Amino acid sequence: AHVPYSPQRYPEKTMLERSRDFYSVMNQRRSVRFISPEPVPREVIDNVIHTAGTAPSGAHTEPWTFVVVSAPDMKHKIRLIVEEEEEMNYRQRMGDKWVQDLAKLKTNWIKDYLDIAPYLILIFKQTFGILPNGKKKTHYYNEISVSISCGILLAALQNVGLVTVTSTPLNCGPQLRLLLQRPANEKLLMLLPVGFPASDATVPDLNRKPVTDIAVYI
Amino acid sequence: AHVPYSPQRYPEKTMLERSRDFYSVMNQRRSVRFISPEPVPREVIDNVIHTAGTAPSGAHTEPWTFVVVSAPDMKHKIRLIVEEEEEMNYRQRMGDKWVQDLAKLKTNWIKDYLDIAPYLILIFKQTFGILPNGKKKTHYYNEISVSISCGILLAALQNVGLVTVTSTPLNCGPQLRLLLQRPANEKLLMLLPVGFPASDATVPDLNRKPVTDIAVYI
Ligand SMILES: Cc1cc2nc3c(=O)[nH]c(=O)nc-3n(C[C@H](O)[C@H](O)[C@H](O)COP(=O)(O)O)c2cc1C
Ligand SMILES: Cc1cc2nc3c(=O)[nH]c(=O)nc-3n(C[C@H](O)[C@H](O)[C@H](O)COP(=O)(O)O)c2cc1C
Repeated sequence: AHVPYSPQRYPEKTMLERSRDFYSVMNQRRSVRFISPEPVPREVIDNVIHTAGTAPSGAHTEPWTFVVVSAPDMKHKIRLIVEEEEEMNYRQRMGDKWVQDLAKLKTNWIKDYLDIAPYLILIFKQTFGILPNGKKKTHYYNEISVSISCGILLAALQNVGLVTVTSTPLNCGPQLRLLLQRPANEKLLMLLPVGFPASDATVPDLNRKPVTDIAVYI
Repeated sequence: AHVPYSPQRYPEKTMLERSRDFYSVMNQRRSVRFISPEPVPREVIDNVIHTAGTAPSGAHTEPWTFVVVSAPDMKHKIRLIVEEEEEMNYRQRMGDKWVQDLAKLKTNWIKDYLDIAPYLILIFKQTFGILPNGKKKTHYYNEISVSISCGILLAALQNVGLVTVTSTPLNCGPQLRLLLQRPANEKLLMLLPVGFPASDATVPDLNRKPVTDIAVYI
């Protein structure tokens, strides 16, 4: 069945203001790799996850699982797995080109933030689902859908003044899936350490492309 | 070089309120396939595109191109391509299972909104870049990055009271790329018709998963 839909409508002046304000808030987002150990209210994290769950998804499959880790021992186990794999990525596995392409970010395999951030959010994509009759359910566009949901999650974090770094720990997926006891149809897509920025946080001095390089009007 | 970063910080009460309000606005988002022909202020569209351009991207490659189409003849050409391909998808190419999986959405290959919506935003992912020396530049995680950017774009539209449907016109990418004269390194990821909802717009009567089905706390 279809149902009527009439969402909130704003006067033109309000639309303009809201579009400018939202751009200004989002434009202050940066990937932050220095996170403060200060606690973050749990309800804020809950609301951010709820918000991510409003994303669209191919054929309404909602193919996402958000694992929110705050237990210190579990955070530490995650750190050990990520640092071991990332050291291999940097030292040998990925080659010089990859290391050079990342050089401007000055990242390396040491990830203190995995112990320090009050929350780690691990985002899994469900590559397929299971129907009540036990058969596989196709999850169309699951990676795209979960990435869209992650974009909405990042917007929700930025909107409350929390920071994260969108990270994709290379080659860590299988071990982290087992550690977190996720089923075999789930694959790790992203790991987001979440908190307030450290008081002495710094970020790479990057610029964004001017809008003329990203938009074409016809 | 690294530079200091100290973003806006909100008192706890304000964080809670902002997280609830943002959830409430985003939770009203639905994919709308009945769009009004009413004009939409161009500056709002510009700000939404700017906002999408603030997304993170693998190794800061910003691998996105947003093609914003408002010219009626170009919208119509897009419609002809999409309807021809979608009719084949529904009638033969995709098979009964795909058609059944979409049945609850009551979609078909007729896409009036491609003529009617004041704007169509076609989002291309740049599968690689070109360096000043003419060599290929690797765009790490380009599909994930562009999908995240699309999530932020959807949030920006919702924030101003505009609607869209996240669509991935199957098998239309190559033809639309040629029509819009995009280079060979760009692949169509999504097509978003944008406008106000039609006054008699309806949406499929879907529910979202409860948060206990999408979140795990450790
Ligand atoms: C990656 C992706 C591809 C989609 N493709 C289409 C599409 O081609 N046509 C369409 O009508 N809807 C498409 N949708 C919209 C979904 O059907 C819709 O998000 C889902 O049914 C949930 O409804 P909601 O967005 O109203 O919450 C797509 C959504 C996503 C995320
Ligand atoms: C898909 C994706 C994967 C990323 N992977 C990593 C990562 O593994 N480690 C990391 O430190 N940063 C990672 N980043 C963050 C990017 O380096 C960052 O977004 C980019 O340099 C732009 O900086 P900004 O986010 O501050 O605007 C990733 C970003 C995206 C979108």
